[in-house]
Amino acid sequence: MNSIKTYINEHKNRFVDELIELLKIPSVSADSAYKNDVLQTANFVSESLKKAGCDKVEICETPGYPIVYGEKIIDKNLPTVLVYGHYDVQPADPINLWESPPFKPVVKKTEIHPEGAIFARGACDDKGQMFMHIKALEYMTSTGNLPCNVKFMIEGEEEVGSKNLSWFVPRNKEKLANDVILISDTGMIANDIPSITTGLRGLSYVEVEVTGPNRDLHSGLYGGAVANPINILTKMIASLHDENNRITIPGFYDAVEELSTLERTEMAKAPFSLENYKNALDIDDVHGEKGYTTNERNSIRPTLDVNGIWGGYTGEGAKTVIASKAFAKISMRLVPNQNWEKITTLFKNHFESIAPKSVKVNVKPHHGGQGYVTPIDTIEYQAASKAYEKSFGKTPIPQRSGGSIPIVALFEQELKSKTILMGFGLDSDAIHSPNEHFGIWNYLKGIETIPYFYQYFTELFKK
Amino acid sequence: MNSIKTYINEHKNRFVDELIELLKIPSVSADSAYKNDVLQTANFVSESLKKAGCDKVEICETPGYPIVYGEKIIDKNLPTVLVYGHYDVQPADPINLWESPPFKPVVKKTEIHPEGAIFARGACDDKGQMFMHIKALEYMTSTGNLPCNVKFMIEGEEEVGSKNLSWFVPRNKEKLANDVILISDTGMIANDIPSITTGLRGLSYVEVEVTGPNRDLHSGLYGGAVANPINILTKMIASLHDENNRITIPGFYDAVEELSTLERTEMAKAPFSLENYKNALDIDDVHGEKGYTTNERNSIRPTLDVNGIWGGYTGEGAKTVIASKAFAKISMRLVPNQNWEKITTLFKNHFESIAPKSVKVNVKPHHGGQGYVTPIDTIEYQAASKAYEKSFGKTPIPQRSGGSIPIVALFEQELKSKTILMGFGLDSDAIHSPNEHFGIWNYLKGIETIPYFYQYFTELFKK
Repeated sequence: MNSIKTYINEHKNRFVDELIELLKIPSVSADSAYKNDVLQTANFVSESLKKAGCDKVEICETPGYPIVYGEKIIDKNLPTVLVYGHYDVQPADPINLWESPPFKPVVKKTEIHPEGAIFARGACDDKGQMFMHIKALEYMTSTGNLPCNVKFMIEGEEEVGSKNLSWFVPRNKEKLANDVILISDTGMIANDIPSITTGLRGLSYVEVEVTGPNRDLHSGLYGGAVANPINILTKMIASLHDENNRITIPGFYDAVEELSTLERTEMAKAPFSLENYKNALDIDDVHGEKGYTTNERNSIRPTLDVNGIWGGYTGEGAKTVIASKAFAKISMRLVPNQNWEKITTLFKNHFESIAPKSVKVNVKPHHGGQGYVTPIDTIEYQAASKAYEKSFGKTPIPQRSGGSIPIVALFEQELKSKTILMGFGLDSDAIHSPNEHFGIWNYLKGIETIPYFYQYFTELFKK
Repeated sequence: MNSIKTYINEHKNRFVDELIELLKIPSVSADSAYKNDVLQTANFVSESLKKAGCDKVEICETPGYPIVYGEKIIDKNLPTVLVYGHYDVQPADPINLWESPPFKPVVKKTEIHPEGAIFARGACDDKGQMFMHIKALEYMTSTGNLPCNVKFMIEGEEEVGSKNLSWFVPRNKEKLANDVILISDTGMIANDIPSITTGLRGLSYVEVEVTGPNRDLHSGLYGGAVANPINILTKMIASLHDENNRITIPGFYDAVEELSTLERTEMAKAPFSLENYKNALDIDDVHGEKGYTTNERNSIRPTLDVNGIWGGYTGEGAKTVIASKAFAKISMRLVPNQNWEKITTLFKNHFESIAPKSVKVNVKPHHGGQGYVTPIDTIEYQAASKAYEKSFGKTPIPQRSGGSIPIVALFEQELKSKTILMGFGLDSDAIHSPNEHFGIWNYLKGIETIPYFYQYFTELFKK
C-alpha cells in the first residue's frame, strides 16, 4: 500500500480545492437562517461519496436535517467499517474577530503549519476531517486497495446535539450494521506527537431565563426596590461554584469516577507545559477545581460553564434601565459515569430552588449526551495504533479529551460496536472560535493514515 | 389669568399635533447612528421657541450635541426664570416589546389615561414635559400674560450624562443668569395626588470588561481548566451585594445620611400600596436592602444595578464556547451627600481588586452626577406649591425621587439659584421602557400650571 503517498502527491491540490468548495457553504445548523445552505451541503457530501466510489448513496430524511448515507459492500464475509462525521458547523460569530471571512476559505502559513492551513469555519470541525475519509475511500476504490466493506453516515446536526441521529440510528440498525465505527472529530497532541482519543466527556446544555418585573423599568425610580433579574442571575450563577471551584448542585458528583493515583500518574506523563499553555492563551493564571491539574480539569473532571449571557441594554453608551428579563446558556461537561439526563434534571431542580421569590425562573434543557471511554486492549485500537505507527513513524499516545461527541455512547448501545476516534486536528486550530483552520499537512496525513487502519483492522479481524 | 384654560381648550389639538411631530424624530443620543436626527431635533426646538415668542434663539455648539438657548427679556428689574429640559431620548430597545413603533406616535386611551395618552419614546421623558414649557410661553406671550423674564436651555445629552452641559454652563454664567431654575423631568404621585420632587439621587455609571483567554475557546477542550470570563464576571457582580442586599464596596456608605425616625415616619405617610405595586409589576415579592421600606429603598438609599450584561453566544440554539470577554454596564444611584466621582473611584478600585489573577479587568467610568435636595421653605417652592393648588385644587406633596438629573447640583453650584422640579408624568408612563407614554390630560395640566408658577414667583420675588 505504498502507493497512497504517491496518490496523495498526485492529487493533493485537487483534494484541497474540493475541501475549499465544501467550506464555502455556511452550513450553520444552530441558525435556521442557514437552512438552505445546510441542505445544499448534504447534497455536496452525497455527490462526493458517489464520486469516491460508493455503490449506494442516499439522503435520508429525518424530522430535522437529513443524514447522508453511503456504502460500498465488496464481500459480506469481510468486516465493515462505519464512518461517522458531520457536515454542519458551529456559528461563526463573533464575526468581527475573523481575519478573513469564515465562509471564504483562504490558505495561509502559520508557525505551527509551515505548509499552510485552510482558514474557514468547519475547516477542522468537521468538514475537513470528515472529507479525509471520502478522499481515503477514493484512493482505495480507484486503486483496488479497499480491503473490506465501508459505510458512511454523515449528519447535519452534530453542533446542535444530534437529536435526529438518535432518532435515525435505532430505526436503521440493519442498514448501519458494522464491525467498527471510525470517527475523525477530535484532535491529537502535536504533529510530532500523534495521539488517539480514548475518552470523551458527556454534555448537558441548558438555557435559563430569569424574569423580574413585567417590563423594563427606570433604574432610578425602581432601583433598589425591585429585584433586578440580571443581578439575581449573576448571584444564582455565581453560587453554582464554591470557593474550591467545585460545582454546588446537590448530587452532581455522585457518579463521578475518582481515578487512582496510578492512573493520574500515567496521565501526568503526557507532554505538557503550563507556561506554554498560559502564553498561548495570554493568561496570567489557570483557573479550575482545587486539587486537580490542568490536564485533569479538562478531561477527567466535570465542569459548568456559561457559554452566553445577555440582558438589559448592551448597545453603545448608557441606558439606566432595569431589564425585565435576563438569560444565560449554560453547559456542563460530564465524565463517563454521569448520566446526562439525570444531571440536567438535577440542574433544573437546583436552579429553580435557589431563585428568590422576587423573580420567576425558567430552565429549558437544550441537548446532551453521555461520556465515553474506549478500551485500548481491543483489535480496533490496535489497528488504529498500527496505522499511526505506519504513517507517523511513532506509536500514538492514548489520551482522554475534554470534548464531547454525545452520539458515541448511543452508537455502542444501539449498534454494539466500538468507536475509534482518530483525530488529526490540533488544539491551536481554533475550532468553535474565530479563525478556525486545519493544517494541509494534517489533512493529507489523515488521508494517508485511514487506509492503513482499514488494512490492519481487516487483517486483525480475520485472526 | 383665567384665560389659560380657555386658551388650552382652543389650541389643545394643535398642541398635541405639534408634540407628535417632535416625537417622530428619533433623537437617541446614546447611539451615534442617530446623529442627524438629534441635530434635526435641536432645530425643531429652536424653531418652536421662536414661534412661541422668544426674542433671541441660538443653537449653541458644544464639543457634543448643541444646546438650544432662547430668551424673552421684558424688564431687567423683573425676575428671570430659566427653563431647563432635554430634547434627546433613551434608546428604544427592546424594540420588539413596543406595541406600536417608538417613533410613530399614536394616541390610545388607557385605564389611567381615559382622555388618551401619546405613546412614543420621549413622550414623557422629556420631549413632552419640555414642550409644555414652550406652549406655556406661547400662551403668556400671545396673550400678554408673561409676568417676568424667561430663558430656555434645552440640551441634547441628558440621557448620556450631560457632559457638555457641564462644559457649557460654567462658560455662560452671564447668559444663563436667573432667579430660579424650572425643570419638568420628574413625575408626580397620581393625577389626583399632585406632588413636587424635592430630592434626586446622584448617579455613577460604569462599564466593565473582563478578559480571559485571548480568543474564544471550545468549552469541551478548555472547560474547567481556564477562567471563563462570564463565570468570573457573575461571581464579581454577585459579590457586590451581601446577604442583606447592602453594597459591599468599602467606603460606599461613608457619606450616606441616615434619616431620623421622624423623617422616616413622615415619608411613610405618602399614599402607597405594596400590593398594588407588586401587582402592577407582576412580581411575587419586592427585593432590596434589609431594614428599609420600598419607598425608602428607591429614594433615600443608594443602589447598584446591572443595566446590561453580555458575553459569549447569545444567538439561536447552542454554541459550546468559552468567550474571551464578558461585559456589563453597571450604575449606582447615590444619595445627596455621596460624591459621585469618589464613588466611581471606589467602585473601580474595588472591582479591580476582586478580580482573580486568571482574568484582566477594565473599568470604564461612563458618567455621573451629584444628588440634590430642594428645601421647601423658599419662595421658589411656595410659588410652585401655589401654582399646583390653583390648577389641581390640592396642595402638592413634597416627595424625594429615586431618579437622577445629574446636572441639577451643578446648576446650584455655578448659577447660584435653586431648582424647582415640577413633574407631570406618572410612574406608569414607562419612561426608559417599551411603550413610553404621556397622558394628554397631564400634558395640558402642565401647560396650565406653569404660567401660575411664573405669576406667583414674580409676586413673591417682589416682596
